[in-house]
Amino acid sequence: MSSSCSLTLSGELLKAVYHLSGDAGEVSLKARNICVEQTVEFPEDLICRQDIKEQIIGRVLSIKSLGQDLGEAIIGYPAEVAGGELTQLLNVLFGNISIQPGIRLISFELPKSLSAKFKGPRFGRHGIRELLRAEERPLLCTAVKPMGLSPRELADLAYKFALGGMDIIKDDHGLANQVFCGFYERVRRVGEAVAKAREKTGEPCLYFPNITGPFDEMERRATAALDAGAGGFVMSPGLVGFDTMRRIADDDCLALPILSHPAMLGSYTVDVRQGISHGTLYGQINRLTGADACIFPSFGGRFSFTEDECREIADATKSDMGEIAPIFPVPAGGMNLDRIPELKRFYGNGMILLIGGDLHRHGPDLSENCKVFKQMACGGD
Amino acid sequence: MSSSCSLTLSGELLKAVYHLSGDAGEVSLKARNICVEQTVEFPEDLICRQDIKEQIIGRVLSIKSLGQDLGEAIIGYPAEVAGGELTQLLNVLFGNISIQPGIRLISFELPKSLSAKFKGPRFGRHGIRELLRAEERPLLCTAVKPMGLSPRELADLAYKFALGGMDIIKDDHGLANQVFCGFYERVRRVGEAVAKAREKTGEPCLYFPNITGPFDEMERRATAALDAGAGGFVMSPGLVGFDTMRRIADDDCLALPILSHPAMLGSYTVDVRQGISHGTLYGQINRLTGADACIFPSFGGRFSFTEDECREIADATKSDMGEIAPIFPVPAGGMNLDRIPELKRFYGNGMILLIGGDLHRHGPDLSENCKVFKQMACGGD
Repeated sequence: MSSSCSLTLSGELLKAVYHLSGDAGEVSLKARNICVEQTVEFPEDLICRQDIKEQIIGRVLSIKSLGQDLGEAIIGYPAEVAGGELTQLLNVLFGNISIQPGIRLISFELPKSLSAKFKGPRFGRHGIRELLRAEERPLLCTAVKPMGLSPRELADLAYKFALGGMDIIKDDHGLANQVFCGFYERVRRVGEAVAKAREKTGEPCLYFPNITGPFDEMERRATAALDAGAGGFVMSPGLVGFDTMRRIADDDCLALPILSHPAMLGSYTVDVRQGISHGTLYGQINRLTGADACIFPSFGGRFSFTEDECREIADATKSDMGEIAPIFPVPAGGMNLDRIPELKRFYGNGMILLIGGDLHRHGPDLSENCKVFKQMACGGD
Repeated sequence: MSSSCSLTLSGELLKAVYHLSGDAGEVSLKARNICVEQTVEFPEDLICRQDIKEQIIGRVLSIKSLGQDLGEAIIGYPAEVAGGELTQLLNVLFGNISIQPGIRLISFELPKSLSAKFKGPRFGRHGIRELLRAEERPLLCTAVKPMGLSPRELADLAYKFALGGMDIIKDDHGLANQVFCGFYERVRRVGEAVAKAREKTGEPCLYFPNITGPFDEMERRATAALDAGAGGFVMSPGLVGFDTMRRIADDDCLALPILSHPAMLGSYTVDVRQGISHGTLYGQINRLTGADACIFPSFGGRFSFTEDECREIADATKSDMGEIAPIFPVPAGGMNLDRIPELKRFYGNGMILLIGGDLHRHGPDLSENCKVFKQMACGGD
């Protein structure tokens, strides 16, 4: 292997915190292996070039014990290894080691040279509040569903929700482009219905259709949604890839807020010994890739996230990420009206409350139910 | 909710097999909940429309016990719910339930109306063998690495590998578009080196650059690779999204075989109580989304897949999927020359053997090492 041209990297580090299962010796070995696996992926003893060993391979910056069978390692990777692009950044942080048991990515920190490559959320908390002219109160969201209703019926629902004062009306994330509810007709009809209600109420209600779909269709659907007066987009990065969400978020011709849905992402967080922490996945990575708000299943619903895990997500939506703006946490997944006081205490006003099916339970008049929802959520304002 | 227009779906079912943790009662409840969660995602008692209950909600087709705390359920979803597109198909199979513990997707079966929407691998096993004029023997692959080498140095390695008789020379999956090794220069130089070696040997060696990258760059990189004489592409669907791989695979202007890399997919298989089975993820989903060969970490290397899990992957690469062609399993992840006889016994000749770093260990003459590799792998032919 020639040593003709030697590397001159900046020395800036991308830092990642991992939890590693095992005793002190195993943790130390795992940390060292991660440094190699995530960069050169090559037997260290066979690398003759000293500059590659020093400048490409990751470095263990610190290790500490977190108990008998758990340790924490902070690893620094040369910023240039991430290549200034999301796909390779994710690969460095968790590519191959996702396949090795007992490794959990807890958080990461980008040097400025790297974070400058990402625009992050176009709107964030501040921008969404401006669009909705709602300065301090919790924002209110519901979904048009169930699947099986026609675009006309969904539009009828949306009209009632909008009259009742919802801030955001979103497509259920399972509404794609099915024969019984085509995307283009749905977006047109629901868009019209929400516009009609807006004229009546004078309130800035936003409709977020679900544009998740095949690679070539995403932009077409987003454009059609924009033309139909959509106020934002629902996207599931677990289905399309985080970089695809980033691409839509960065497109100046599609400048609407994005609501990220957690479909298919659950396997990253479900086992606390491995995967990616709740805060990093739903908070940090969503922010980096342009989501303006992130749906996650809150404690106390149909799913199993704990209060601590939900706290971690809520914190990560607003933690310091340099120029990357804070986004809204959107606790969801079987929330109901009775739980609003508890959710308000837990998340504060800095959230979008998403109540779906349960909004239909309160009584036959959906607009009236929305008003009850709003009163309960914003009564103190 | 109006019942004005009633549904008339085909009755064709997308069938999915799940393993569910819990006793018999829990398994039965979980199965029923999956039917609702993955379709209407709406309280069943609030759905007035009988046709939605009957035609949209999934059906439990069978349940059986697999022991004290495990059951297997087969669920049938109406084919139309998957909307004829990959993103929604994945969502139906495992979207929201990825977030619920104790649910593992074991396998799935598409009705013809749905599988006809997917082209699958363009080449598959048969097509790759034709390109390489290698009818029965195992195929041989290695990677240019480690990261940190310049394009010129990687080209030098590739030249030696090609002279030594490798069938496929791939970029290491961590080679993206870093400042120290830009994609476009690398592809040009390595492409030239492999072409030069081909002229000398008369053998059809193929170079597979890694085109994994940002949404907008993928097609540009693939086109540049094609122009530089690449013989295939490396893509990591865990980093770009499976549908993005499908998009590249389906593009008639980029008609080269695709080698799928498992980066960032590990969290789906790492905990056997949840996630997606090895065979489904690496075999079925890769095939459906156009990979012609799939890399996975074989037993006995740096990773922890068991023999059974590897067998499952190898079987799923060739199981009946209607018109979707069989693809090559590519056991990798710390393989070395000494293990070739064992790997041949286990996988047979229907594989691509990938040996990376260890090829450098055998001796200083890389071409000679490749010849030893080939002799060991194909000696019996």
